[in-house]
Amino acid sequence: MSTRVPQRILVAPSGFKESLCAESVASAIASGVRRALPGVRVDTAPIADGGEGTARTLAAATRGTLHEATVVGPVGEPVPSHWARLGGSERSVAVVEMAAAAGLSLVPHDRRDPGATTTYGVGQLMAAALDAGADTILVGCGDSGTCDGGAGALQALGARILDAQGREIGRGGRELVRAHHLDLTELHPRLAEVDIVLACNPHNVLCGPSGVARVFGPQKGASPEQVDELAAALDNWARVLERDGVATGDVATGAGTGASGGLGAGLAAGVGAQLRSRFDALLDSGLSGIDLDRRIRKADLVITAEGSIDFQTPRGKVPAEVARRCQQYGVPVIALAGSLGQGAPAVHDVGIAAIASIITVPMPLSEAVANGERLLTDAAERTMRMILLGGAVSTRSGNRSRKKSA
Amino acid sequence: MSTRVPQRILVAPSGFKESLCAESVASAIASGVRRALPGVRVDTAPIADGGEGTARTLAAATRGTLHEATVVGPVGEPVPSHWARLGGSERSVAVVEMAAAAGLSLVPHDRRDPGATTTYGVGQLMAAALDAGADTILVGCGDSGTCDGGAGALQALGARILDAQGREIGRGGRELVRAHHLDLTELHPRLAEVDIVLACNPHNVLCGPSGVARVFGPQKGASPEQVDELAAALDNWARVLERDGVATGDVATGAGTGASGGLGAGLAAGVGAQLRSRFDALLDSGLSGIDLDRRIRKADLVITAEGSIDFQTPRGKVPAEVARRCQQYGVPVIALAGSLGQGAPAVHDVGIAAIASIITVPMPLSEAVANGERLLTDAAERTMRMILLGGAVSTRSGNRSRKKSA
Repeated sequence: MSTRVPQRILVAPSGFKESLCAESVASAIASGVRRALPGVRVDTAPIADGGEGTARTLAAATRGTLHEATVVGPVGEPVPSHWARLGGSERSVAVVEMAAAAGLSLVPHDRRDPGATTTYGVGQLMAAALDAGADTILVGCGDSGTCDGGAGALQALGARILDAQGREIGRGGRELVRAHHLDLTELHPRLAEVDIVLACNPHNVLCGPSGVARVFGPQKGASPEQVDELAAALDNWARVLERDGVATGDVATGAGTGASGGLGAGLAAGVGAQLRSRFDALLDSGLSGIDLDRRIRKADLVITAEGSIDFQTPRGKVPAEVARRCQQYGVPVIALAGSLGQGAPAVHDVGIAAIASIITVPMPLSEAVANGERLLTDAAERTMRMILLGGAVSTRSGNRSRKKSA
Repeated sequence: MSTRVPQRILVAPSGFKESLCAESVASAIASGVRRALPGVRVDTAPIADGGEGTARTLAAATRGTLHEATVVGPVGEPVPSHWARLGGSERSVAVVEMAAAAGLSLVPHDRRDPGATTTYGVGQLMAAALDAGADTILVGCGDSGTCDGGAGALQALGARILDAQGREIGRGGRELVRAHHLDLTELHPRLAEVDIVLACNPHNVLCGPSGVARVFGPQKGASPEQVDELAAALDNWARVLERDGVATGDVATGAGTGASGGLGAGLAAGVGAQLRSRFDALLDSGLSGIDLDRRIRKADLVITAEGSIDFQTPRGKVPAEVARRCQQYGVPVIALAGSLGQGAPAVHDVGIAAIASIITVPMPLSEAVANGERLLTDAAERTMRMILLGGAVSTRSGNRSRKKSA
């Protein structure tokens, strides 16, 4: 009996935060796989998670186009940003990555006040996509630096948020304590004819003890007092949205309303956006054209990856989502990581059969980041060699047991 | 078809220099293997390479005993040392590790003058073994801090090295320029009745352009002038050994004569020691009782390891030797490493099918060393999971091709 080796391998990694985009990760892994197994068919499916890099990744994956735009950043100053038009679809699908206009990394450390930052730029990107004729807008949530309940985005789209005296309120979540009326009469005219889908974490809700102010406020730089103030402002905002908005759902505690500091609530109530679980929206909706499940079914082995694999990975990170889908089709999946942190073996519980680190020698983080692609390629080669060896050992053990039983 | 998993795994690692002894390495790997594959039979064979740790490793591997002794260290000051009596043999086999009495790590950095250091303590350990009734002495070479042509060891065993005026010369290689006559009449009486076997690198020779002074002198701290001086002294020593010694071989350029700064030449010519290739002596001679080949033949998979796997590994390091033997029996072998350095993939050319690093995250060397055993256990588990996955993929690919052809 000769050893069977994998014929088709799907490489479906996340990007490595602050280091490598998902396309580069996928391509580096593919190179290493081919080095160990030259004849193999490697399919690469870089996976976006809605956060930083989502627009670029989806544009690259679908051979779409990236469109630059300067928008109002989270602290009110102009920032260079972009949105994507996806390729490969009859529909004109635009991807707006909220982090590209209002991400935490756009907020200087000394200005991390989530009561003041705005999603205004997100609305500007959406308006740009509308002006360019998009008939669907997929909004990626994640990595946000804001907590304004999507108020800024609505303002940029033409909504007016008025106080009890009929004056427009300012930008930032803290201002929402003064919100009294939401005027949607001057919304961008095309909003009525397009589908807006948010890719969000359904566990994030706008208000209550698990509301965004209490859960994410401290991460985004709020003091305990600021958290209380912000929570009260968002409670008030939820009442205004429920009364004056277009949505029928539960704005305060509905699934995903807290996505990206409440952007979910604002866009759902203000412009009727659908709040969908992020991987459903990014992979299943038919919007992105990724068609991950079909590609998984065709593979003998799937390789996923993430910058850091640790106790958080099973909680909805890309490798866990890829593994969940692989398990449905009985396709084995392994994961490579820039680093294997505390609790990494927990990923075995969500179906990842084996993990490996790309780090080869004691080295500082800066060196690992600087050499990320080379380390990934080498790690993929080592991993494939280990897997091929496993196939050979399995064959050998099989031959041996047959010999014994003969 | 169900997946066949390895039934028997042999763990045959080297120690990790300055960090973990080979027994600890083997035991840490075995723990990780069992974590991934609880039912597997794991055989551990820590491999000594003749250098630091050899006496301890062989004592542990054979359930022998370790005997402490204070001897004259390489710079003339007393050092705590030890020799081993092996278990499991009818013969009384002693192991003297030259590095334990004259190793480079026993020479303070500010006293690294290979013209002055002595192997006297090595002779003292041999004498202790003789006094204790050993009928065979296995001398491990490697990691030496001396270049005295074994003169010190011979002196400690009762030999007198005289100058042209009949006066005894002092210690250290440089003194050998004055050597004129080797008087063996007062050698330890039991030397005549015991076998002395040196485990050495056959490529090391005493004299000539590849002689120890020129090749190893600089590493041991000699300046270019000191190298010339030392080379001349060893040339003279070779003439004395050839004339007055008991051996018939080529003392100056015979294989292994340069082992441990010429200890090979001194013991071969002075007391008739056999110079054997180190792994032949340590693994095949029947002296150590390791019987590595038999254990390899029984295994489905062999796991070896070394502190650093790099371009030097194929040149006679433990993993390369283990791989050479595994290839003879067609048993697959993988290697774990504390670090995978420059040129590590060259080990595939000597038959190591796959390699993995134990490092999981960017970290300083000190952290890797401090957590060596945990990192090894975790790495062994990850590696086994990868191998088991490879077995499953192989089975899956096989089923798939059969389905297609059916």
